[in-house]
Parts: sequence; C-alpha cells; structure tokens
Amino acid sequence: MEKLSRNSRVVAITKLLIESPNKIIGLNNFSELLNAAKSTISEDIVIVREILQKLEMGRVETISGAAGGIKFIPTIGYEKGQEFALELCELLKDDGRVIAGNFIYMTDLMYNPEIIGKAGVILSSYFKNVDVDYVITVETKGIPLAYEVARNLGVQLVIARRDTQVTEGPTVTINYVSGTSGRLQQMSLSKKSMKAFSKSIFIDDFMKGGGTAQGIKDLLKEFDSELVGIGVLLDNKEVEKKLVDKYVSIVEFKSVEKSAIIDIKPSKMFL
Amino acid sequence: MEKLSRNSRVVAITKLLIESPNKIIGLNNFSELLNAAKSTISEDIVIVREILQKLEMGRVETISGAAGGIKFIPTIGYEKGQEFALELCELLKDDGRVIAGNFIYMTDLMYNPEIIGKAGVILSSYFKNVDVDYVITVETKGIPLAYEVARNLGVQLVIARRDTQVTEGPTVTINYVSGTSGRLQQMSLSKKSMKAFSKSIFIDDFMKGGGTAQGIKDLLKEFDSELVGIGVLLDNKEVEKKLVDKYVSIVEFKSVEKSAIIDIKPSKMFL
Repeated sequence: MEKLSRNSRVVAITKLLIESPNKIIGLNNFSELLNAAKSTISEDIVIVREILQKLEMGRVETISGAAGGIKFIPTIGYEKGQEFALELCELLKDDGRVIAGNFIYMTDLMYNPEIIGKAGVILSSYFKNVDVDYVITVETKGIPLAYEVARNLGVQLVIARRDTQVTEGPTVTINYVSGTSGRLQQMSLSKKSMKAFSKSIFIDDFMKGGGTAQGIKDLLKEFDSELVGIGVLLDNKEVEKKLVDKYVSIVEFKSVEKSAIIDIKPSKMFL
Repeated sequence: MEKLSRNSRVVAITKLLIESPNKIIGLNNFSELLNAAKSTISEDIVIVREILQKLEMGRVETISGAAGGIKFIPTIGYEKGQEFALELCELLKDDGRVIAGNFIYMTDLMYNPEIIGKAGVILSSYFKNVDVDYVITVETKGIPLAYEVARNLGVQLVIARRDTQVTEGPTVTINYVSGTSGRLQQMSLSKKSMKAFSKSIFIDDFMKGGGTAQGIKDLLKEFDSELVGIGVLLDNKEVEKKLVDKYVSIVEFKSVEKSAIIDIKPSKMFL
C-alpha cells in the first residue's frame, strides 16, 4: 500500500481502537496495516488520545512491555452522563409505563441500542478500574446492557438461565427469591461458563430488594467467582434495605403510586 | 472552544459516526461541536469516507435534503469476513463442543463480544440494503448477536420470550415446534413491542429445521409485521428441507456424528 496521510492514519487508528474497547493493540498492527514507522504511529496516537480526551469521548492508555500497545477505554463526560440520565427520567415518566401490578414497562428502553449504548458506557466507566473477568446477568431484559458493559470492559459475558437447557451441558442451579415477583425462582449456569477464581460484575435492568443480586452472588460462589460490583439501570428506592449493600444505578425513584412513578431522578452518581 | 486541527476533527467525526451506526447526523452537529464551518466539515468527511472505504472498514453515506447529513454503515471486507468464518470453524471444531444428545455447546462464542461484534457486522452488511424497522430474536443465546445487528442497522431490538412475564403487560403467545428439541414450545411478545405494518429481520444462533424461524414468522403476523430476512451464525445442513426458504448463515456443517461436527465450513456467503 502507498503511504497514507496523517489525516487518514488517525481515522483508521480511531476506528480500530473504538471497535475493540479494552483490548491491547500492539503498535505493530497499526504499523503494518497503515504502512508507517512505529515512531510515526506513536505521533498519530498522541493526536487521537488528545482530542478524545478533550471532547470527553474516552481514554487511550499506553501499556508498556513486551505485550504492550495501546487500548481504548470508553468513558462519558460528567455532563453528558447527567444529561442522558435526565433524558432517561423523562422517557420513564411517559404515560402508560406503569402496568398492572405496579410494574414498570421498560422493555422498549432496555432493547434500544442508542439508549443501551450510552447506559453501557456509564456503567463500564464506573467499573473501569476494577479488575474483572466476567460480566454476568440473568435472562432476559438486562442482557443487551450487560453485553455493552462486557464489550466496553473487554471481557466475556455470562448469562444465567431461568431453566436448564439441553444445549448447555451440565449446569449448576440455585434457588432465590425475586424481589420483583416475590416468588421463589431458579437460576442455572452451565459448568463450562466460567473459570474458577475469577471476578465478576453483575449487571441488570432493575433493582428492588436485591434478591436477584443475592442469587447471583450465591450462584457465583458455586463457581468460585467473586462478585466485585453491581450495576443497574433503574433503582427502586421503596425497599430501603437491600439484600446487597454495594451497587450503582443510573436512575432511581421513590415508589410507584396510583400508576405514576414518584420522584424519579438521576442517581447519586450524578450528584 | 479554540479551532481544532483537521487531524483532531477527523478523529472526532470518526468516533461520532462509528458509535451511532445507520443514524443520520446533520453537519450542524459536527460544525457546532468542532467549531468549524460546514464547508470545512464537508472536506473532513471526504477524508474519513475515503480511508474507511479503502481499508474496508465501512461506508459513509451522504443523505441530502432538510433532514440530511451523513451516516456510517458498518461493513466488513470479503477477505476479512472469510477469515473470520474460518476462525469460527476452528473454534467450533474444538474438543468437547458436542455434548449429550449431539447438541453443540456454543454459548461461550455467542456471549463473546469480540466474536459477536464481527458476526454482527457480517450479518448487518448482508441486510444493509433491506428496509427494516426491527431485529427480532427469541431468548436467549441469539440476543447479543441480534443486538449487534440491530445496533448496526440503527433499529430497535425485539425479543420474544419463552414464557409470559408480569413486567411485559398484555402479550401475544403462539405455539411452535422447535427443531432443536423437537418439542412443542411457546413464544410470547408484549403487545407494546412493535408498531403495525413494520418489517423485521430474525437473527438467531442456530438453524436446524427452521421451526423457530417459522414460529417467529407466525408471531410477527399477529403484529402485522413482515419477515424480510433471516440470519444465523451456524446452519445445520442435516435437515435439507427447512420450514423457511430464505436465510443466510455464517458457518455451516453437514451433521454431528460420534461427538464430532462433520464437514464444518464457511457458508456459501463466502464462496
């Protein structure tokens, strides 16, 4: 390939970094692809790093050593995060979201890539300095969000099933009481899903009593995996004493009364 | 903000385009954010478009008119796609993938963001000229892949559930015979999930007899939505006559015999 201009090289470097968040890319890769010396690539990277940082679009970190290179860490600026949380509050205030049983219909939001893309960056930014091997969720509504967080952190997603499946091989099953339905439920996970002595983050759509989070904690114990963080989109503050103590949310509300969500606001992350 | 260099502007434009695939971004947005004239931004865009196209990293399209602007369409080059399909074959050939009942364990692949990111671009590229409102899947293993395809096409994801949930409001339920288990199963979808007279693409992990795809077709009929495409990661060619006629896969195999996957290879998409 002929030589490319700096303008062209920084575009390609940006594209490659962004599509593989938290994965170390050696300078050799850029050097070969773009037919440029490593010293030239290093200068290109400075430009990419500076503008992304200036516009609060993410961080480019340098990892030194034999397996070194650079990696992209998605982040979102404080103001943009707050703006997004406020937008989310408005969307949740929409008429007709509170359905029979005082449940909140939020499936449309949880399956909207534009919304979940942003929510995923907020949660993965929060956990960016946590050493983590897996992002775990329980089917179904939290899966896209958990997937985004896993992608941003550069780790494997793990999904606990509510029933055992023939396609999963031998599984471990635990019982837990869901705060949403108040019923005894089951969670299963294939024995092949996780390596022992790992660290995991649990991501879900909704937190009420923390029953599901406690269930995940119990399930992870069976896999010798430590639960090192919990993140949810929406926190129901009605239950003050949760079964788990440390977690983070994007949006919170006080209660659901007479088909209305009371006192919905960005979580304390945005105070 | 002070004026930025062209190098810096093209990095920012690339970042914004890539994180919102298939969404039209007006030149005003770039102009305001980057404090540059629209004519300057237009020149920047030419640079971004040319290098992404040259390196087969995606297309930047211009949409004229009042609501015009530019949008990014993720694509993957033919050779890179083929290379990925071959890698996927190698991963699937791994010992221990065939589990009791001659099922193939592929959960680890379906929940691996690096793999699913690439598979998602291959499938969304295939459907890039199809007018589509929704990407639909049925829980659970195909969800990350369907999410990636929905994100790349810039549309909403819809997930059919195997059982009805209190948090979904009124639902429509249909029965279907799954090719994998051979059992009569149910699929439910919230009445709030889709607008009438829409077009949908079905994405799943695996195709055998096409029973699930036929079930999705029936379910979509109840929502006056037309099924305009089907894409799966892995196609089991053992069942020659599928219940649905048109679909695309990334990898295919002939059969599973004595705990081995026979004749696994990239699909005819890569011939």
